[in-house]
This record gives sequence, structure tokens and C-alpha cells, in this order.
Amino acid sequence: MLAIGVDIGATKISFVLMKNWRLIKRRKILTPKDRGVLIKTLKENIERLIADLPKSKILGIGIGIPGPLSKKGDLILNPPNLTCLKNFPLAKIIEKELRIKTKMANDVNCFTIAEATIGAGKGAGVVFGITLGTGVGGGIVINGKIYQGAFSSAGEIGHATINFDGPKCTCGSYGGLEEYCSERFIKREAGVSPKELEKKARNGNKKAINIFEKLGYFLGIGVSNIIDILSPEIVVIGGGIAKAGKFFLKSVRKSAQSWSISPVSKKYVTIKKAKLGDFAGAIGAALLLKS
Amino acid sequence: MLAIGVDIGATKISFVLMKNWRLIKRRKILTPKDRGVLIKTLKENIERLIADLPKSKILGIGIGIPGPLSKKGDLILNPPNLTCLKNFPLAKIIEKELRIKTKMANDVNCFTIAEATIGAGKGAGVVFGITLGTGVGGGIVINGKIYQGAFSSAGEIGHATINFDGPKCTCGSYGGLEEYCSERFIKREAGVSPKELEKKARNGNKKAINIFEKLGYFLGIGVSNIIDILSPEIVVIGGGIAKAGKFFLKSVRKSAQSWSISPVSKKYVTIKKAKLGDFAGAIGAALLLKS
Repeated sequence: MLAIGVDIGATKISFVLMKNWRLIKRRKILTPKDRGVLIKTLKENIERLIADLPKSKILGIGIGIPGPLSKKGDLILNPPNLTCLKNFPLAKIIEKELRIKTKMANDVNCFTIAEATIGAGKGAGVVFGITLGTGVGGGIVINGKIYQGAFSSAGEIGHATINFDGPKCTCGSYGGLEEYCSERFIKREAGVSPKELEKKARNGNKKAINIFEKLGYFLGIGVSNIIDILSPEIVVIGGGIAKAGKFFLKSVRKSAQSWSISPVSKKYVTIKKAKLGDFAGAIGAALLLKS
Repeated sequence: MLAIGVDIGATKISFVLMKNWRLIKRRKILTPKDRGVLIKTLKENIERLIADLPKSKILGIGIGIPGPLSKKGDLILNPPNLTCLKNFPLAKIIEKELRIKTKMANDVNCFTIAEATIGAGKGAGVVFGITLGTGVGGGIVINGKIYQGAFSSAGEIGHATINFDGPKCTCGSYGGLEEYCSERFIKREAGVSPKELEKKARNGNKKAINIFEKLGYFLGIGVSNIIDILSPEIVVIGGGIAKAGKFFLKSVRKSAQSWSISPVSKKYVTIKKAKLGDFAGAIGAALLLKS
């Protein structure tokens, strides 16, 4: 059986083709800003991916998109930096154009189901996935299925408050986790990008290492809230900034231990770096067809 | 069909008998501090409750206990103010003594399943229950079943951090929700008990009403974290302090709206006062036999 996964980011689109849930092809392109061009590009790339393959063996297409979906999950509500898709029923249009069943989910949910199914969280019952990048995203997988809550918006840990007296977020409220472990935090603390800070840390720069440890400490407070509220078996941390995970994962674990309340969760919860790399979102999108 | 529910509190024990999931008998006694006496008292009161009834129609006994359970849910880990039950397999002992199937759960989970099944949250898919009293507890019910997470400790909203620079909690960490909407908060702000403050508010005392509104504002920040992470359909607020709900529920709603991120959840989530009163915990304990 074949499944196609597409992860639409603000700057790049990743495509994967999976055969019996193993990755057999992958491809990355730049994201067109115009909606018409975007749809045409998606269509052409998917067609290229499955050019020589029997259509009868294709389970479907899964699409991961940034930002929240509508209550029913059929419209893209308000994708940051991808405004051409606002209130757009992308899955329905692609399904109609290609005549292949198409599902759609939030990209962090796709990341989480990929890590929960074949990545760092494989075998765990309740997985919380966190992505650290421009923003901070979160997703929940319970018993192999994405948990979206009553209104398709669960997992938004980046905007959950850890310090109501903290800095103002782009969303208008104050002291959300995102203020303490996204690109914004690194720029505020270090005046450089996450990549540059990582490079400095790898060269042994103590100030850079300290900033990553501080990030880890704050992220640990956010993770302790997840542990208190959701009691996951594992928390998987991915996204661009997680590439520097060796500089902050220990602080995350220590801080989460110290700030969470349940002695059982403290003892048994695992906090791990993501395993699947840049294509995790597209792989997870393909996995949407599994359930 | 008959089901027995027992809610063991630090000062009082409530018993209910339900017939076809409707309350037909209820009773409240003081909690004995000695374990031997406690077990004897439980046994005698349950026997009295079912004295004239056919044992074959009894589905079982449900027990709600304060504090967390062990990973497997068979031991009471560390019940505050009820130390005689520490590390004790209460359900197993009662089942053996009375030869009736016995289940056990955290009391806030029992409160939540009661409100989710026949109370304020009836009909909702995802219900988050909060109890405001000496401490602040939380429970999650998803599709009619208690969600306990991987390590039986989900729902602990009272110790989730909303201000890491805030006051130190009894648990050792800082600025948990409990610091801002439990009895402790009211005593710190008003110098009186919740009951006394409620009385003052009912007499039109503006300072008292302001303190409740402040409590509501902070509780709303905690509720916004629940909405962001879990996307519940409804949040039900109970416990002793909720009796003064008319003085703070509006502030909770306003604050939760303003601090949460998802436009869909903001629009559709409901925040309500609990409906079942003092016997909610015991009713929920009986409902443990339903699933």
C-alpha cells in the first residue's frame, strides 16, 4: 500500500511517498506564495511522485498545514506566513483535482503522529510532541491517534502561560511558553539566530551554552504543565532549535522533574529529542491515512 | 441495577446508592482517623445501605479518594490529611471484606465523571472538571471515561504553573494555579475564610466582590491553559469556593477568552458551575462501575 505525505511550510514544502509505512521517496521545494501556483505545484509534484505506480494501490494523500483548522477540520483558519490559504478547503480541492482521497491536519499534529508511530515515541500510549522554531507548537497522540480535543485546537502549548507577568506575545497575551524557548527568545537573549547560537555553543562558547540551558529550564516549566495536566508517557522535542538539543535537553529534564507534581509521572515520564528529522511532518501527514 | 458510591474526604465520608444511575439513597458521616476503624465504618455503612436489597443486582462499589493513585491505580499514594491510607490497597481490601467488586479513583476524577455524565457537562465529549477548596484539583473525562494519562496522574491543574515568579506552593514549586484561587489565596488577600468572604460579598461588600473577581481573573488564566492544551468542550467548576460562583464566573469566562489562543475554542468552549452539589464525588464513584 502507498501513501503520499505533504508538509506545507511557510518557506518549503516537503513531499514523501511511503510504501507499507516505510519511506521510499522524498522531495523538498520552495513554497509558492500565490494560491493558484501553489495548488498547481502541489498537483504536479504529487503526480510526479506517483507517475509509474498503480493508482489502485494508493491509500491517499495527507497534508500537514501550519496553524489551526476549523472546528470541522475542513478549512485552514489562519496560517501564519501563508495567508493565501486562509479559510481555504485545501484537502477538498486537492482531492477533487487528483481524484485521490485527501486528509488534512495541523503540521505539529503530523510531526507528533510520525514521532509517535515510527520515531522517538514509538510504542508509547500518550505522546506529546513539541516543535521549537519561529514559534512553539504542540501535538498530542493518544493510542496511535491524533487527539484534537473538542474544537480541533488541542496541543497549543506555545501560547499556554507560564508567567502572566512575562513578555507580551504576538497573540496579545503575556508570558506564554513561546516567549521562553522560540527563536524570539534566542534573539532577545543572544542577539543572534538559533543556528548561530548553536554554532557558538558547539565551539564551546560558555555564554551560548548558558542561554541554551536557560531555554531548557523554561521549556521544562512548560513540560511540567503538560505532565501535570496530561500525564504523557513521553514528550518528544523537535523543530529547528532541537538540533541543538544536546545543549538543553538535560536542563529540560531537570526542570520538568522539579516543577511537576505527581511522583509517579516524575519517575516514569521520558523526555526525548525527535528522531525523524526534517521530513517528520510529511511522514506524519502520510500516516493520517493509516487510521 | 444498583451501584454504591463512596467519597472519602479528610473530614467527611459520603455514601450514595444509585438505582439505574439515579440517586436513591445518600448519607454523610465523619471520617475516622484510624485505619482499622475507617475500614470497619466503611463496611458497616455500605452493609446498611444495601441491607434489604438483592446482592445479585449490585454492580459494585466505587470509591473516590483524595490524592494520587499508584501507576496501576491499586494503591493510594499519599492522601493529604488522610495519612492512615498511605500506600494502602483500599479497593482490594473492601472487595475482599464485602465480596462485592470494588473500583477506586481519585476524588476529583469522580467529581468530573459525575458532572460529565449527569451534571453540568452532560452530553459533552471532552469535560475538564475543577474543584476549588483547600487546594485546587482537576479531572478529565473524554467520551464518558476518566482520562488518567499514562501514569494515572492527569488533570493536576492546581500545580500547573501560571507564574513562575509567583508565591511558593506547599509542593515546593512556584506560582501554581492553586496559589491564585484556593482557600489560601482568599486568606492571603482577605484574611478570612471563603465562606466568610462569600457572606461579605452577598452583603454587597465591594472589597469582597473585588477579591472574588481577582480570583476569577487568575482562574481564567489557568482555564486558558487547559483550553490551549486540551481543547475541552466544557469546563465545570465545583468545590466549596464555587458556591460563591456568581461573584467570579463572569471574570473566569472573560479572562479565559482573553488568554487562550484558538479562535474556535474561544468561541465554542463553555465554562459552567457544577450542578450536583456535595454528593458529586460519591455519585461519580458509583459511576465508575458503569464503564
